Amino acid sequence: MKTTALIMAGGKGERFWPKSRKSLPKQFLVLTNDKRTMIQLTVERILPLVDMEDIYIVTNKDYKELVSEQLPEIPKENILCEPEGRNTAPCIGLGAFHISKKYEDAVMMVLPSDSLIKDGERYRELVKEACELAKKGNNLVTMGIKPNYPETGYGYIKFSREEKEGNAFKVDRFVEKPSLEVAREYLATGEYLWNAGMFVWKVSTILSLFKEFLPDMYKGLGKIADAIGTPEQEKVLEKVFPQLESISIDYGIMEKAGSIYTIPGDYGWDDVGSWLAVGRIKKADNNNNVLNGRVITVNTGNCIIEAKDKLIAAVGLENIVVIDTEDATLICNKDSCGDIKKVLENLRQLNYEEYL
Amino acid sequence: MKTTALIMAGGKGERFWPKSRKSLPKQFLVLTNDKRTMIQLTVERILPLVDMEDIYIVTNKDYKELVSEQLPEIPKENILCEPEGRNTAPCIGLGAFHISKKYEDAVMMVLPSDSLIKDGERYRELVKEACELAKKGNNLVTMGIKPNYPETGYGYIKFSREEKEGNAFKVDRFVEKPSLEVAREYLATGEYLWNAGMFVWKVSTILSLFKEFLPDMYKGLGKIADAIGTPEQEKVLEKVFPQLESISIDYGIMEKAGSIYTIPGDYGWDDVGSWLAVGRIKKADNNNNVLNGRVITVNTGNCIIEAKDKLIAAVGLENIVVIDTEDATLICNKDSCGDIKKVLENLRQLNYEEYL
Repeated sequence: MKTTALIMAGGKGERFWPKSRKSLPKQFLVLTNDKRTMIQLTVERILPLVDMEDIYIVTNKDYKELVSEQLPEIPKENILCEPEGRNTAPCIGLGAFHISKKYEDAVMMVLPSDSLIKDGERYRELVKEACELAKKGNNLVTMGIKPNYPETGYGYIKFSREEKEGNAFKVDRFVEKPSLEVAREYLATGEYLWNAGMFVWKVSTILSLFKEFLPDMYKGLGKIADAIGTPEQEKVLEKVFPQLESISIDYGIMEKAGSIYTIPGDYGWDDVGSWLAVGRIKKADNNNNVLNGRVITVNTGNCIIEAKDKLIAAVGLENIVVIDTEDATLICNKDSCGDIKKVLENLRQLNYEEYL
Repeated sequence: MKTTALIMAGGKGERFWPKSRKSLPKQFLVLTNDKRTMIQLTVERILPLVDMEDIYIVTNKDYKELVSEQLPEIPKENILCEPEGRNTAPCIGLGAFHISKKYEDAVMMVLPSDSLIKDGERYRELVKEACELAKKGNNLVTMGIKPNYPETGYGYIKFSREEKEGNAFKVDRFVEKPSLEVAREYLATGEYLWNAGMFVWKVSTILSLFKEFLPDMYKGLGKIADAIGTPEQEKVLEKVFPQLESISIDYGIMEKAGSIYTIPGDYGWDDVGSWLAVGRIKKADNNNNVLNGRVITVNTGNCIIEAKDKLIAAVGLENIVVIDTEDATLICNKDSCGDIKKVLENLRQLNYEEYL
């Protein structure tokens, strides 16, 4: 049975402004020490397991060109364009139907396009195991992440120590983002993993679950699938997709389905959720500054500073992020990265469209 | 008797980097809400008291063009160029000899080119009184500033309440920059003023004091004066001036001379010593931010932010100075403005001449 991959690349992430823009979201940015963008790294990472022709990218139609440019080896017909974002269930269903048109059945990985994994080898080892497990019967496998601190911004996966298959454990349930107190309890039990949105299953398995738990969506996606390869393909997609229910795969299927396994991941996963992550990932100097470009620091520590065309001199700064781009410069307290979206709100109010 | 003015504009101030550069020191910058530069404001301020043809500018030869551009009404021959900076005594002596070539005697104000005075009218009133006092006998008059906090970066003038002439008091002595404790004591007595380097005297008075207390310098300056208007003028200046003792007028003459008066100034003097001063002078918004250009602030207070060609977004910043220029951006904690010179040291070490 063939192994295929669906990479979700529709995100519009605003958290990396001013580098990320409406026309250039996070997954298309270089954010690590590597010269490749997040989505290029994602493809690279799974290539030993999947043929290039079996990698599908679901993205917003606005980013079709970007995907083609950054991933020229991916067949054009594998770049699936959502007319608008409808959360992860329609996105994954669209991918599953496309793959089912090509193969009678196949293993299908579902991956975000904008997270980082430090130990690619260990990751592939466990993904391979997930693929084997997915092939057996109708198992859903989710690649959970061993938490190393009580993060309150992620959902968690509760597994059961008793039911084990190799490195995989049976999933008890999915839980929403917890409070700090609850997150601490989760960590203490050792039976909770972060839900990183990485799944492995057979196409046949997930499609039958769409049919069972999201029957209207299944019908809609079926119409879209019927038109694939016909002159109507585009038109049907444009008409039907926006009417599909906007719902996550977790909420729509995973929380209802049985026979779900999780494989605890210990391969240095990072969702690269904000500029702070860049500070974690990139190499810091002796003062714990992560510097890029022509930067001079005097009595400055714990800062992230990326110069572009101008020299940046930082004097007496602590805990500050400076990101310079061609037309805009962000200077942000590390503790205020969550407020970057307020800058974008301001820009919208001021009709400064060119910076969005 | 004619009233003349000597404006000292040789400073190379590094404290306003990146706006000030080797080729564009502070006195030639716009630093206030006014559109005029510091030296333009200085000339404007005294114009009601002095004819344009009686205003002399002493500057470094590198800035001759800048002075001409910014002050086209000043006669070219009134722009006196020091081959190199030798502190204030040679500078003032050079000016005094030049004026003595033109007038048998005259009142001479000596003024820095880079300080700010808010109440120009009150200032002129007191300068006028100083001129009258200088005309009488051989009085030296120094325009002291009433201190409103115990500044440790200035020298002080101790005056005597007993000996009064109109608004002027007899000076007891000049004192060096004090410790904070001593500065507090000075303030408490009410008998100390800041020494702002503004003087008024007759040319004949100051020249006779040069002859008495700095006889070698007097001779050297005499040689330079003898060559004024001859083909040798430039050559003699270039040869003799660099050999003159490098000494301040305070140390070389004022601390030794008798009959010195001071007029306590209450006209909103500001030496505009650093970016902090710009924060004091310019209008602040409700969050006490002084903003210039396209700036967006979110949860940001007590900052000074000057955008240039790029939009600047400040998020969660407190007490920070951001100055953008064409090729360099300074981001500096307000408490670290004194460390800006370390940036320049770094730039020199790195051979980044273009930013100096």
